[in-house]
Amino acid sequence: MSMVQVGVIGASGYVGSELIGILMKHEGVDISGISSENNQGAAFSTLYPSFKGQYDAQFESNQEVISKSDVVFICLPHGKSENMVKQCIDEGKKVIDAGADFRLNDLKVYEDWYETAISYPELHGQAVYGLPEMNKEAISQTSLVANPGCYPTSILLGLYPAVSEQLINTDRLIIDAKSGVTGAGKSLSAVTHFANKNEAFKAYKAGTHRHTPEIEEKLGQMGADNVKVSFVPHLLPVNRGILSTIYADLKSGSDSEHIHNLYKKWYANDPFVTVLDYGTLPDISHVTHSNQCHIGLTVDERTQRLIIVSVIDNMQKGAAGQAVQNMNIMMGFNETEGLAMVAPSF
Amino acid sequence: MSMVQVGVIGASGYVGSELIGILMKHEGVDISGISSENNQGAAFSTLYPSFKGQYDAQFESNQEVISKSDVVFICLPHGKSENMVKQCIDEGKKVIDAGADFRLNDLKVYEDWYETAISYPELHGQAVYGLPEMNKEAISQTSLVANPGCYPTSILLGLYPAVSEQLINTDRLIIDAKSGVTGAGKSLSAVTHFANKNEAFKAYKAGTHRHTPEIEEKLGQMGADNVKVSFVPHLLPVNRGILSTIYADLKSGSDSEHIHNLYKKWYANDPFVTVLDYGTLPDISHVTHSNQCHIGLTVDERTQRLIIVSVIDNMQKGAAGQAVQNMNIMMGFNETEGLAMVAPSF
Amino acid sequence: MSMVQVGVIGASGYVGSELIGILMKHEGVDISGISSENNQGAAFSTLYPSFKGQYDAQFESNQEVISKSDVVFICLPHGKSENMVKQCIDEGKKVIDAGADFRLNDLKVYEDWYETAISYPELHGQAVYGLPEMNKEAISQTSLVANPGCYPTSILLGLYPAVSEQLINTDRLIIDAKSGVTGAGKSLSAVTHFANKNEAFKAYKAGTHRHTPEIEEKLGQMGADNVKVSFVPHLLPVNRGILSTIYADLKSGSDSEHIHNLYKKWYANDPFVTVLDYGTLPDISHVTHSNQCHIGLTVDERTQRLIIVSVIDNMQKGAAGQAVQNMNIMMGFNETEGLAMVAPSF
Amino acid sequence: MSMVQVGVIGASGYVGSELIGILMKHEGVDISGISSENNQGAAFSTLYPSFKGQYDAQFESNQEVISKSDVVFICLPHGKSENMVKQCIDEGKKVIDAGADFRLNDLKVYEDWYETAISYPELHGQAVYGLPEMNKEAISQTSLVANPGCYPTSILLGLYPAVSEQLINTDRLIIDAKSGVTGAGKSLSAVTHFANKNEAFKAYKAGTHRHTPEIEEKLGQMGADNVKVSFVPHLLPVNRGILSTIYADLKSGSDSEHIHNLYKKWYANDPFVTVLDYGTLPDISHVTHSNQCHIGLTVDERTQRLIIVSVIDNMQKGAAGQAVQNMNIMMGFNETEGLAMVAPSF
Repeated sequence: MSMVQVGVIGASGYVGSELIGILMKHEGVDISGISSENNQGAAFSTLYPSFKGQYDAQFESNQEVISKSDVVFICLPHGKSENMVKQCIDEGKKVIDAGADFRLNDLKVYEDWYETAISYPELHGQAVYGLPEMNKEAISQTSLVANPGCYPTSILLGLYPAVSEQLINTDRLIIDAKSGVTGAGKSLSAVTHFANKNEAFKAYKAGTHRHTPEIEEKLGQMGADNVKVSFVPHLLPVNRGILSTIYADLKSGSDSEHIHNLYKKWYANDPFVTVLDYGTLPDISHVTHSNQCHIGLTVDERTQRLIIVSVIDNMQKGAAGQAVQNMNIMMGFNETEGLAMVAPSF
Repeated sequence: MSMVQVGVIGASGYVGSELIGILMKHEGVDISGISSENNQGAAFSTLYPSFKGQYDAQFESNQEVISKSDVVFICLPHGKSENMVKQCIDEGKKVIDAGADFRLNDLKVYEDWYETAISYPELHGQAVYGLPEMNKEAISQTSLVANPGCYPTSILLGLYPAVSEQLINTDRLIIDAKSGVTGAGKSLSAVTHFANKNEAFKAYKAGTHRHTPEIEEKLGQMGADNVKVSFVPHLLPVNRGILSTIYADLKSGSDSEHIHNLYKKWYANDPFVTVLDYGTLPDISHVTHSNQCHIGLTVDERTQRLIIVSVIDNMQKGAAGQAVQNMNIMMGFNETEGLAMVAPSF
Repeated sequence: MSMVQVGVIGASGYVGSELIGILMKHEGVDISGISSENNQGAAFSTLYPSFKGQYDAQFESNQEVISKSDVVFICLPHGKSENMVKQCIDEGKKVIDAGADFRLNDLKVYEDWYETAISYPELHGQAVYGLPEMNKEAISQTSLVANPGCYPTSILLGLYPAVSEQLINTDRLIIDAKSGVTGAGKSLSAVTHFANKNEAFKAYKAGTHRHTPEIEEKLGQMGADNVKVSFVPHLLPVNRGILSTIYADLKSGSDSEHIHNLYKKWYANDPFVTVLDYGTLPDISHVTHSNQCHIGLTVDERTQRLIIVSVIDNMQKGAAGQAVQNMNIMMGFNETEGLAMVAPSF
Repeated sequence: MSMVQVGVIGASGYVGSELIGILMKHEGVDISGISSENNQGAAFSTLYPSFKGQYDAQFESNQEVISKSDVVFICLPHGKSENMVKQCIDEGKKVIDAGADFRLNDLKVYEDWYETAISYPELHGQAVYGLPEMNKEAISQTSLVANPGCYPTSILLGLYPAVSEQLINTDRLIIDAKSGVTGAGKSLSAVTHFANKNEAFKAYKAGTHRHTPEIEEKLGQMGADNVKVSFVPHLLPVNRGILSTIYADLKSGSDSEHIHNLYKKWYANDPFVTVLDYGTLPDISHVTHSNQCHIGLTVDERTQRLIIVSVIDNMQKGAAGQAVQNMNIMMGFNETEGLAMVAPSF
């Protein structure tokens, strides 16, 4: 079988590094090339010594990578993807954009929250939001996937059944999320300096994080009315993992068994979502280094609230893993090809 | 000046160890003795090697410790304090109980949540809830202080001004709290086994933690009507620190400046509470190894919610530090004597 | 192709858990069964929640597992393997013993250091020491492999070329090794209690660790005369990884380039050993979650010492990964089948 | 009693921050002022939020600080201290230089290893090497103390009795040292980026670290002949602490009891050095956040080597704590004033 040629634009960052690791294990693709604005000519394994002797390819120019590829992953900061996507689509490539530029359907909301103007509005109409558990059919038919944000992935998977089945009020959702440090990426900063972050923990961007409109828009598309969330992210002193604790007022009586069964059934055919036994709450360590999402449910009987706890690995299901899952669906591969099904126990 | 003689019952546990460290620095007291059911005859520094050469006293019996003391700290599991407190009070000692037995005024609620019967109901009437910022006057006049729980301390300090001034609705509070591992104490368990807890993070006892009724009762005493909280604690992979993220619906318009000023004024004379600049959120690392509480405030304008983030060191302001602060007030010492005012920067 | 049936005895421990994770990815084998003395009837995923929904098989009896298997991995404490190996060999199975019982050829030394009597001396003659880079041919022809200890693996790989080529004196080797906490296994202990181990670091068993005679005997088999090592292990506050710093007096002039070239050439055909550029020193994070060994070399010109730094993942190349590598060689699979070639970057 | 006025030059770095924390607890001094080249006009508590509300002083110019001070601590990179010391001495101040410029008596060796020229050789003659356990008398009489390096402090204290009493050969010492990340200071770097350093461990500057000549020169001053050390530092994923494992060939028979008794007696009057029971090895967590040094001893009988394990907190006994200890000796304060005698248990 001829291998699909896959390129990575912006491969020097953390998502790029994680992608290379996954793609090396994928039996249907070759890595055709990698690019990095600041590292052209350098070997990938110089930046990421784990790959020494296993993947020592050099960074090339964006154009070189695009030319050699059937599928292009784009790992660029928001505002920088749009032009690159345009170029890839114009050259007839399939594209998975790991950045934020194509995630929102409401372009006005994008421009407000990201303070960035959109240049090719028509292009955005082609983009499919790449949450496979929600949009698998559309993903299989598009050439342009917008890979979801890490926080939204954990949150949307946690809420999808409850929202679709109208179990909860969505006008007063509270989402308290906690992420590992790789979510902040490779750029050096005082916040991610080891001595500052180790044995430390804090909230940030309370109520103002850019993933907020993504969460609200997609919940609306899942069937929620009048969505309004208070979203507060926190930074954990761990490398990987997102845990989202979601507080939702139940619409009517708390039939916890009914809710749990619904969740189990909802995700029965999704290979990367596991609904735990009722009352069992997940740990990020149970999913890190895998593409899994674990979901735990409990009803707070005293307050008639559904408490949902959802965990993913921010670098896998929250970024590179989900990007490959999307590629698998787009290209007709087995959905799980190349992806880790099980987290190591420690 | 003659030194106050201070004993510690149950000194082999984590709170006991932290207390010894503080009391050694206190200029007005001598440690008269320490007891431990399982370690009688052993040297304290065998269990806690940091103290080698500095505090090598041996554990004695409870009765020996009580006899030699003016003030007794009791660090026993719930259900075990009550008898010991009775004995100390009968012998005319001042008592600070670090456990849960005397925290709740509603004894029925205690018996329900702790599944433990109360033997001396009349004794409970003498107990003062030892949150100095709330009850300083009463603490100064009692012989029996119930030292607050760690989570409630962080939460009550965060909510006190808003609740007292009727700024928020208290019938739908959501409190998402995160604690370091020392909160789980010295007992070995799979949860606190290093390989399980390192690079890990999870929620536990969602909606069912025993600190819930303590939070609700004390908020009521602060002036809240119809208090109802959803309280979900989480376990951080750090040794020390509690961060509580509190979501409260504002009663009327969000005058964030007014709220912030109120908080600043409220705590202006409390040496261990620092209200940060509006919008600045605290980090647990800014208070660990000190008796400080840092409080950050922000109003989520989109949802008209007040988001309060409060941090303490669970072993200091959340346990041993607050116990000594209570002793200082009871015995007429300077409130800050022996206590760390500033956390080390790392 | 018919799949090889593989069973794991003692699968409830950390090495067992890691083995299951690897075997699930191996395309030539089926896991025929798992046993655990204390967990019979329980589901594996109850102990290791990462596997929930992916590997939920129950623990059976040892005999059930052996009966269904072509190859048996034995993950038992020293002193418990010998009988089990006997039984497997008697039933015509291939065996890889992850424990210590068959590692030493000098049975007297084993009995002294391990304070355990040997019952079947003749059986030991069949055992091959499973360091593939040293004994590949013999491994391919035996039915009984003794999987090396974690520390010895990192140390022997680091010293093999220098010892074989007589570059160093081996009568005064100093080996300062540091291991992650999973090396101490699943048993709860004060040493591995999170609050004790986090932000902590210590040496242990200085000069008395049971891996010492294994190191000395195998160096002798590599060609060293009069081997004598001071071996001091330390316990790192990380989950995985061993780093060994080895200090060896050079026999003659320090031609660092010659030494480095020799190492490069020596391991050129070994897929799991990477010799870094001269002077570049490895980090355990560059190999954890992979079966790689990275080796860094530098000559301390002032003292004419060769300093070798070798890193592995104690659970992979130091235990379960190497065990599967041995199985691959024994069964004629590709040596790298099922094994991770590259560590994730974080 | 009038307070001694103490200023800190270069107070924005980690050693400066630690110094401020100690000096605030010192009952004999006032902090007269702090300077920072890059932060003039900013509040100290903006950089170090732990100090918010407790120490909010602003950074001033060096000259302002010097003018207001009786004693000046200088916390500048090597090469920058010398001029500043000159100025302070010329103005009649007492000086404790936390940097490297005055540590070595052999100026040629300094210039070689530090690649920095010396401008005022005569000034160096006045400097006393500030290891109080070695030079207390001289420290009490000088105006200029060179505060030792962090690694040398742990190593010299570990070796002092054995070297002075000629118990060991010093021409083939091997020192394998491990430090927490604060030793690398406040400057952002890829090495100390959280995601790179967490769950990571590596050696660096093997045989070439600048503390090597300091160790060798001071061992010579302690009485060692022909000193030659192989010194390899490593970077631990913890905030604080240094553990040095020292391997020394014993001169004659291994009378471990004699050696241990000698060590106990040697340090009997030193408040900050604790010799553990023979065979007990220290943990860095037993000294972090204190000014203590714990020393463990064991004789490797098989190789006739003395293995010494010494731990300190690199920021306390390895930097700021020792600097204050030196000030106490210089100014006639109690040697322990302001300093933490006991590490918290976690």
